[in-house]
Amino acid sequence: MGLVVQKYGGSSVADAEGIKRVAKRIVEAKKNGHQVVVVVSAMGDTTDELIDLAEQVSPMPAGREFDMLLTAGERISMALLAMAIKNLGHEAQSFTGSQAGVITDSVHNKARIIDVTPGRIRTALDEGNIAIVAGFQGVSADKKDITTLGRGGSDTTAVALAAALEAEVCEIYTDVDGVFTADPRVVKKARKIDWISSEDMLELASSGSKVLLHRCVEYARRYNIPIHVRSSFSGLPGTWVSNEKPESQGDHKVEHAIISGVAHDVSEAKVTVVGVPDKPGEAAAIFRAIADAEVNIDMVVQNVSAVTTGLTDISFTLPKTEGRKAIDALEKNKAGIGFDSLRYDDQIGKISLVGAGMKTNPGVTASFFEALSNAGVNIELISTSEIRISVVTRADDVPEAVRAVHSAFGLDSDSDEAVVYGGTGR
Amino acid sequence: MGLVVQKYGGSSVADAEGIKRVAKRIVEAKKNGHQVVVVVSAMGDTTDELIDLAEQVSPMPAGREFDMLLTAGERISMALLAMAIKNLGHEAQSFTGSQAGVITDSVHNKARIIDVTPGRIRTALDEGNIAIVAGFQGVSADKKDITTLGRGGSDTTAVALAAALEAEVCEIYTDVDGVFTADPRVVKKARKIDWISSEDMLELASSGSKVLLHRCVEYARRYNIPIHVRSSFSGLPGTWVSNEKPESQGDHKVEHAIISGVAHDVSEAKVTVVGVPDKPGEAAAIFRAIADAEVNIDMVVQNVSAVTTGLTDISFTLPKTEGRKAIDALEKNKAGIGFDSLRYDDQIGKISLVGAGMKTNPGVTASFFEALSNAGVNIELISTSEIRISVVTRADDVPEAVRAVHSAFGLDSDSDEAVVYGGTGR
Repeated sequence: MGLVVQKYGGSSVADAEGIKRVAKRIVEAKKNGHQVVVVVSAMGDTTDELIDLAEQVSPMPAGREFDMLLTAGERISMALLAMAIKNLGHEAQSFTGSQAGVITDSVHNKARIIDVTPGRIRTALDEGNIAIVAGFQGVSADKKDITTLGRGGSDTTAVALAAALEAEVCEIYTDVDGVFTADPRVVKKARKIDWISSEDMLELASSGSKVLLHRCVEYARRYNIPIHVRSSFSGLPGTWVSNEKPESQGDHKVEHAIISGVAHDVSEAKVTVVGVPDKPGEAAAIFRAIADAEVNIDMVVQNVSAVTTGLTDISFTLPKTEGRKAIDALEKNKAGIGFDSLRYDDQIGKISLVGAGMKTNPGVTASFFEALSNAGVNIELISTSEIRISVVTRADDVPEAVRAVHSAFGLDSDSDEAVVYGGTGR
Repeated sequence: MGLVVQKYGGSSVADAEGIKRVAKRIVEAKKNGHQVVVVVSAMGDTTDELIDLAEQVSPMPAGREFDMLLTAGERISMALLAMAIKNLGHEAQSFTGSQAGVITDSVHNKARIIDVTPGRIRTALDEGNIAIVAGFQGVSADKKDITTLGRGGSDTTAVALAAALEAEVCEIYTDVDGVFTADPRVVKKARKIDWISSEDMLELASSGSKVLLHRCVEYARRYNIPIHVRSSFSGLPGTWVSNEKPESQGDHKVEHAIISGVAHDVSEAKVTVVGVPDKPGEAAAIFRAIADAEVNIDMVVQNVSAVTTGLTDISFTLPKTEGRKAIDALEKNKAGIGFDSLRYDDQIGKISLVGAGMKTNPGVTASFFEALSNAGVNIELISTSEIRISVVTRADDVPEAVRAVHSAFGLDSDSDEAVVYGGTGR
């Protein structure tokens, strides 16, 4: 029985009852002989309430102070959780990100972890304590200021601590039962996945799956930490995410499932730069302007140029929230780049099919497009990686498209486990 | 223009509007050329809400975790205050007690400051910042755990920082206009005091005046830091508390007022140990039992023993909240101490007259008793120090007694400043 890192999100500790329920679950792990480190988020809506307060005093809260403010949230939940555990007769100590040795860079509101020095956590464990650590927060290496890790930061804290403490597993407790083959709110027949490779999980996370964020999975993959995503309410086994399939998940010599799941995302918009001269350096000029405006983009598509005009169109997708910034940046550089016009469309959706198996199984792409066609869904953009195919469609078409693809690839819960494709060429 | 430490209590920063109002006041001090360090308490009811949460998860929250929890309160207010100041175009940085170098012992929930090493505050000031510091909290010297200073802790933080930074003045902003000659809720004619000696302020604080706590005044006296207690709402000059009368407060060579004020306290109870053998070691045995139970006591009175029985009675007062503990401790040691019975009375009140002038003005005691007698108030216990006379009466008699004494000593706002007594012997 080794060391386990458990992470509980805000919905699991939303009130005193939730905290007491989580405390019992933690004590069970301890009773089973594990050393237990718990990473906890702020209670329920605490963070939103603090952000609301900040907006009341300042329209543009400074990063350093904003981080100082937000970190009060985990301070409350971690102290309460430690009290609740002690009330069950077990020893517990809570630690801030700084006390736990979570060292970050100085980029406030979205700091990156650059080192983890968990000396105090190790000592607390050696003395028989359960260690409770504030998620989402750290301390900057240079100025010793309090920082926060940005969205999904508590998951990253958990994985980083698991890596630094050489934990057996990092358990991410949440309000769903695990990772599903598609969003169960859209696809009623979506199945819970028992195991998924880190590689496939990364693609799902990039493609709109909300259960685990890309950054956390990437960290776990790099340090080879198995993640177990599971429900803090049901206590049932959830989804294992790891680089290699563990023996507990069936014969690990058998090939992976071809397709892990279908992800979708309706949070993006599409920008099309129309009438770009088809000559070297044009794409670079466009995306340098975008990068200088600190806009993150997702898909980029360029088709062959029209022979008659020598002009081409370049499209890209990006979060709707970044749309204004991107358009402004391009308009400002219109003369330098030399395009005709811009089109902006925020009524789009993206559907992605993910699975490492598609590398060696030709025909997946064709089957994917056939399924969409049969559902009457028009494809606007296509982009692929080695283990993913993504298309952009009208946002209204997304639910039907996801269900059609999920069913076509035999992922529905009443169908067989997975089907093998071949022969028609990808 | 030197360095000023300002302290704002929870009622001054109860909501976003309060924080913005306080931010303006701080910026004014900065514009006047001062270096400004601000100590801030938790917003309004935050601390009570956190205590309530703690009680929901554990009937006996552990000290270390309780402190971790409570310190979230100032973290929120200080970050918001820094944001509000920056929004007014001035630079501000917030610091936790630990970051500000407030080093304490390890007694959770009521830690004592043992050192202040404000290196980061000094740096922030030198860089042109307004420094915002969390009141009420520190970090333990040995274990590096977060501690809280107990009741009135933020005032103590402010004075301790003022001493360590060699500030010109420590301004304590509160929701009243200053220190009054009596509680204005009881005595309508109570006058605001412009200046009071630290010595007299200490006695008032011990005698029930709530404006400043004994501990904070004691710290200021030891390090010779002038305190200016004033309203964060009106902005008017309040009450100066210092060891020597400053020249700004009129001719400081003139004698102090004889009487500074009248304090009262109805939060105490009286315990009488009846039938104590009048022999050496008896009082010691009683108060050793009390001390071992960690009960703080206030007045102690023993009268001459009855000649016929050789037995005496010993009475003492203590906070009502400690009554149960004291009675239990004495009952448990009844055989060892050897008394007849215990009497417990929580319907008492204490009225105290305070003023260094009484040392050299005979007749004060007589006038005090005459005033009480004229008001028909019966005296149950008497206790005096060099500069204070306190009596215990029925709790119901307290308001009338305070008004009578206040008026008799010429403290009413429509009477002359002070009157000189003499001739009848104290």
